[in-house]
Amino acid sequence: MKSEITLDKSVGIVQTQYYTFAVPPDEMLLVSGEKLGPITLAYETYGTLNQNKSNAILILHALSGSAHAAGYHTEADAYPGWWDHYIGPGKAFDTSKYFVICSNIIGGCSGSTGPSSVNPHTGEEYALDFPIVTIQDMVNAQRHLIDYLGIEKLLAVAGGSMGGMQALQWSISYPDRVQSVIAIATAASLSAQGIAFHEVGRQAIMRDPNWNNGNYYHATSPSNGLSLARMIGHITYLSEKLMHEKFGRRLQQADIFKFRFDLEFEVESYLHHKGNDFVQRFDANSYLYITRAIDYFDLKNDSGGDLANAFVHVNSDYLIISFSSDWLYPTPQSREIVRALRMNSKNVVFTEIQSDRGHDTFLLPNEQLEHNIANFLKREFEKVHKK
Amino acid sequence: MKSEITLDKSVGIVQTQYYTFAVPPDEMLLVSGEKLGPITLAYETYGTLNQNKSNAILILHALSGSAHAAGYHTEADAYPGWWDHYIGPGKAFDTSKYFVICSNIIGGCSGSTGPSSVNPHTGEEYALDFPIVTIQDMVNAQRHLIDYLGIEKLLAVAGGSMGGMQALQWSISYPDRVQSVIAIATAASLSAQGIAFHEVGRQAIMRDPNWNNGNYYHATSPSNGLSLARMIGHITYLSEKLMHEKFGRRLQQADIFKFRFDLEFEVESYLHHKGNDFVQRFDANSYLYITRAIDYFDLKNDSGGDLANAFVHVNSDYLIISFSSDWLYPTPQSREIVRALRMNSKNVVFTEIQSDRGHDTFLLPNEQLEHNIANFLKREFEKVHKK
Repeated sequence: MKSEITLDKSVGIVQTQYYTFAVPPDEMLLVSGEKLGPITLAYETYGTLNQNKSNAILILHALSGSAHAAGYHTEADAYPGWWDHYIGPGKAFDTSKYFVICSNIIGGCSGSTGPSSVNPHTGEEYALDFPIVTIQDMVNAQRHLIDYLGIEKLLAVAGGSMGGMQALQWSISYPDRVQSVIAIATAASLSAQGIAFHEVGRQAIMRDPNWNNGNYYHATSPSNGLSLARMIGHITYLSEKLMHEKFGRRLQQADIFKFRFDLEFEVESYLHHKGNDFVQRFDANSYLYITRAIDYFDLKNDSGGDLANAFVHVNSDYLIISFSSDWLYPTPQSREIVRALRMNSKNVVFTEIQSDRGHDTFLLPNEQLEHNIANFLKREFEKVHKK
Repeated sequence: MKSEITLDKSVGIVQTQYYTFAVPPDEMLLVSGEKLGPITLAYETYGTLNQNKSNAILILHALSGSAHAAGYHTEADAYPGWWDHYIGPGKAFDTSKYFVICSNIIGGCSGSTGPSSVNPHTGEEYALDFPIVTIQDMVNAQRHLIDYLGIEKLLAVAGGSMGGMQALQWSISYPDRVQSVIAIATAASLSAQGIAFHEVGRQAIMRDPNWNNGNYYHATSPSNGLSLARMIGHITYLSEKLMHEKFGRRLQQADIFKFRFDLEFEVESYLHHKGNDFVQRFDANSYLYITRAIDYFDLKNDSGGDLANAFVHVNSDYLIISFSSDWLYPTPQSREIVRALRMNSKNVVFTEIQSDRGHDTFLLPNEQLEHNIANFLKREFEKVHKK
């Protein structure tokens, strides 16, 4: 039911595609030493790959995202893809100019191989038999997809939050295949506080009796635990200021206290709504695996304790963006990345965007973010085509 | 097993006392309109009440505190009371000079009437039949105790966090009975973010099947939910910086990842430890009631939307203290109280103490906090005795 005008600025109706690889006996070796295969990755593409394949941009998503970054799956869809504000004709990732690919991740539950997939060795869902995957493993799997699409070098790899971690990892794992990196609201490693919030979310799931040690695929899902985990997450995605402005201490009904444990304040109702929504579309085991992958991500540790070492061999230019009110991935963590890159004399553009909207700013319309991405990409595209 | 030296600076061995009042038919009317009685309050006293009863200080505790603020219950106690750093001979609340009373709260589970107490009307534990209590109700109950102790006017009412809310409320509810207020790391109302964290904690409890709608006193306690709630709480009590310094991303064992969902990082193990400790000593229903009381506290709302109106009739002097890294009760919330008091030309001393230790700073040894309290009390004591 989208109006013509809306679809005019949109990539329109799109379809998720699937690529399967690492078919046994050629399984993919994971960082943990375990093997995984076959692997299916869900992905979407928008725009057209040019003849010399020099306009491809890989978009990577955060914890709860999917391959569906832009456009609509059907005319009846109420909402477009998760980064539709930024992907489309004339938008920051201008699909009239660039070929945009959004890849899902292994470990997820949105069409790619994860704990809810059937383990070909047993004919049953993997559940906790699914191996622990890392950000590096996610990136290695995506590299297979990019090979399959016949793209030698990506004009850019871009993402926010965990997507930004993947983007950074891409430039480290495959230095010759990444012209530029756009890493938004991210870090070289999650803080102790971030790990703590993740652990509480995981415990909420694992303490739900319906979780049943991960074996719930033919029974009731641990929705109580998963929605609780999502509620905790949502507190960390918003700034205190935004919560204050959005909800303050407003009551849900009338002007007087009910003096009960029912939902009383609007902020409680908001969190419950977010939690309940989430369990409709997300797998509890995937939540465990993905948060653990974020916890494990540590570029400093990977390179002997000095973050500068992580970027010694990279060949990319970087756009690093943080948001002033993001307390989950605060600006100092972005600055740490910028410093490490500059110590290696890499090309870095860094901007801290003033915003009251916390970590979630990267998902919301923001003119500055739009301009920063568009200008950076324009320069990178020109650079490539002057060569 | 305390050394002589330790006991020398300590109030020594103390005993919790109990006062029962509001015996039916004289039950206490609560803000909600419900009635509660009989009511028992647990309390401890340290030092000696002087002849003209002008040296009494009432100490009020935070969410998980108790009447046991100082000294030891037995020689074998591993730890003293929760504010032993500040209460004792020669300490900030100098028990060689002042008569210090610490009162527990209604709704709690440390000797005072709360949801785990037996309802005399049924002979069973109240559980969720216990009425919702507010900070005002807690203070009204404490007023009965202060009457019983024969104290007309308290030299000071002091507390941190929820204890600070009670202290502020004392000066508003009983303006002629409070010479001065020491309100530390507190607010005139909890923020939307604070309510959100409380609600997630409550949900963790209420979604534990052992909670059983509050009826678990003769069965297994909802320890999973309660410890999860406590883990969430502990994240908010520490600053990100302290967590970083205390745990960083250090692993629990060895130097390599286990690639499992077991406790991997030290910060996870710390939270689990805190959660497991808590369930040994706290009642899950009390956690619900007390967090709700904090949520409901709103001095601005109580006085028609203008915080200045809350303090029109107070007759106390105030010491307001915040901590720079406290993000649960951040400094601007203390400044809001200070502004409202100054608009009423009240005597206010305000200090923001620089600290990396977050909200929990008020429970830890801190020289500045000690000096601020000691000096303020000295002046108030002199003021009273010059009159």
